[in-house]
Amino acid sequence: MSSDLLCGTHAAPVVTQLCRHAPLVHCITNDVVQNFTANVLLALGASPAMVVHADEAAQFAAIADALLINLGTLTRPQQQGMRAAIDSARAAGTPWTLDPVAVGALTLRTDFAHEILAQRPAAIRANASEILALAGVSLGGRGVDTTESAHHAREAAAVLARRSGAVVAVTGEVDYITDGERMLAVNGGTTMLTRVVGTGCALSAVVAACCALPGDRLENVATACWLMKRAGEQALAVAKGPGSFASALLDSLHAQAFGGHHAAH
Amino acid sequence: MSSDLLCGTHAAPVVTQLCRHAPLVHCITNDVVQNFTANVLLALGASPAMVVHADEAAQFAAIADALLINLGTLTRPQQQGMRAAIDSARAAGTPWTLDPVAVGALTLRTDFAHEILAQRPAAIRANASEILALAGVSLGGRGVDTTESAHHAREAAAVLARRSGAVVAVTGEVDYITDGERMLAVNGGTTMLTRVVGTGCALSAVVAACCALPGDRLENVATACWLMKRAGEQALAVAKGPGSFASALLDSLHAQAFGGHHAAH
Amino acid sequence: MSSDLLCGTHAAPVVTQLCRHAPLVHCITNDVVQNFTANVLLALGASPAMVVHADEAAQFAAIADALLINLGTLTRPQQQGMRAAIDSARAAGTPWTLDPVAVGALTLRTDFAHEILAQRPAAIRANASEILALAGVSLGGRGVDTTESAHHAREAAAVLARRSGAVVAVTGEVDYITDGERMLAVNGGTTMLTRVVGTGCALSAVVAACCALPGDRLENVATACWLMKRAGEQALAVAKGPGSFASALLDSLHAQAFGGHHAAH
Repeated sequence: MSSDLLCGTHAAPVVTQLCRHAPLVHCITNDVVQNFTANVLLALGASPAMVVHADEAAQFAAIADALLINLGTLTRPQQQGMRAAIDSARAAGTPWTLDPVAVGALTLRTDFAHEILAQRPAAIRANASEILALAGVSLGGRGVDTTESAHHAREAAAVLARRSGAVVAVTGEVDYITDGERMLAVNGGTTMLTRVVGTGCALSAVVAACCALPGDRLENVATACWLMKRAGEQALAVAKGPGSFASALLDSLHAQAFGGHHAAH
Repeated sequence: MSSDLLCGTHAAPVVTQLCRHAPLVHCITNDVVQNFTANVLLALGASPAMVVHADEAAQFAAIADALLINLGTLTRPQQQGMRAAIDSARAAGTPWTLDPVAVGALTLRTDFAHEILAQRPAAIRANASEILALAGVSLGGRGVDTTESAHHAREAAAVLARRSGAVVAVTGEVDYITDGERMLAVNGGTTMLTRVVGTGCALSAVVAACCALPGDRLENVATACWLMKRAGEQALAVAKGPGSFASALLDSLHAQAFGGHHAAH
Repeated sequence: MSSDLLCGTHAAPVVTQLCRHAPLVHCITNDVVQNFTANVLLALGASPAMVVHADEAAQFAAIADALLINLGTLTRPQQQGMRAAIDSARAAGTPWTLDPVAVGALTLRTDFAHEILAQRPAAIRANASEILALAGVSLGGRGVDTTESAHHAREAAAVLARRSGAVVAVTGEVDYITDGERMLAVNGGTTMLTRVVGTGCALSAVVAACCALPGDRLENVATACWLMKRAGEQALAVAKGPGSFASALLDSLHAQAFGGHHAAH
């Protein structure tokens, strides 16, 4: 399948909508990246909420505008919370997004990912190894690093999109976003994004937020990818290393959402 | 109830005491903000310790100078640890502070908050929705955001203070701090504080630390609020967005506590 | 036992190896410092992975190049994951490192630390109180702060190294690293490292990564200590307080590993 490049003139109105709608994003995500994920959503004007207990997760997923399920530090109690939240989200019509961290490399989460994949996620954001594993094409990956290029996972992503009904984003040097019929590409970014933990996980939260917006879901999800790549480039220009890069990335996301000025007093 | 404005000449000696006493603050708080909470306490010269298992939490609450209970990502195992810590704190005379995150919006934590409220917290720090819910005045709030202004929650805070015996801080555009008889107000701050996750939760930890100090508890708690608003203003002056703001906030808190110089070699 | 000072000419080649080998470090660590620990490893070119569930932890410890066990926020479910990971690591020949946070002060973790100490860790990184408690010399410490100087714990570290078979690093104003026969010392650093949560825990993760390298384990572990002290000094030179210090610390670690240039595009 050939792909079309997403350009800024398509992305910009989606960014404006994201900040205006300020979706409330219910995140059940891994322990390592909860703080950074919340700060990325806040920088863009969205509202994060991490509600994890099974009882409350069901209640909250019905209130929220979007739900994120990230398998990074999966435990059995967390599985219960995730199942309850997904059931509740589906009943309420809340779109949910899957980030299948390290699926393929580890059994418990691979089985769980295949189980919840039947619950029709609105979107899936992953690296090439994880997409190949989810699509059943290959069992690769060594932990969280990808061992297959995003390019090679394009066809697997399209297969997975058609089978699951989700918009699938496979991210890497170039990001590819597909609904199984069309495919968009997003260029750019920087490898410094791989030297800060949680940039991929936080991108999945932005994807989840964008699934709550009106309009074309394929373009909305691609805009999330576009936002992170642009912010990475801008942050690299002012950073002295990964520490100052992480701060600058949040500054840059905020500037894109709020028009470059502080929007604070 | 009318309020008096807390001014810097009253707050400054409390800040000095905080840094000199360096209270050991036992924090049982939500997963999202543990790191930032610890860094805020360290910046002010206090010592944070996050001990969560029920067995150890009871042991540690008796050693610590103050205890913080934050319901942000409540789970049933965490409830056990919180109950054990509160019991032990009360037996040892350790003051404990409650941050009832999202109480009112979610059932499990609302029931739990009402249960532990009977255990006579030294202080409560919350937004307007949460204070109204705790006081039984209204059931509002959509997750962690406040839907009622701090001003409207003033009377509810005074009722809650008289009923619980706690100093109650309801924070927002203006912070109000009351023991049910007197009320102090703290002005200033910046909305950028709402674009960084955990600034409210970390403030609750500073409130907990201030409850370990000698002197007037109402003024001590108000000083915690004053510190965060001043640091927010100073950080905004040098920040380019929420990422650099979060770093600058810690720098500014440290400068207030240690007199503007590094206090490091 | 007298000690020799580790100098930069011995440390530099180990830093180069660390970045080149890029060890995959399986971290089961405390909730407060997971994010910072991962970012420190990434800054140095290593790959962190936090896999915590008992089933997956056993599977992953056999894939990883090194394992870190940190007791900072120990819970009973986490103990199961740690036991499974250590068993699997030993069977696979994966070196594992122990950070016995607050051992001595709290019973549950002290008992657990003594239990797993029999499983022959490759390295132990701790402060003086914790080393004294592990060696059975003294029961000191008030939470995570050390109440005994690293100097006084030198002899206890040597005893512990001979008994456990581990390289033991006792860190403080001066760091001492011993295998029970030789002892290296690392000078320098800054007290600002104690105003940012997790610098010690993250150092333990770097120690774990260095245990995966070929060559002399004593020098490899001492190099981890040397790296953190040098980065602390460089960060202090540009920091305005603990917030900007934490960012600058990551920048500085990255510059040491990648030769001062971005290594990003």
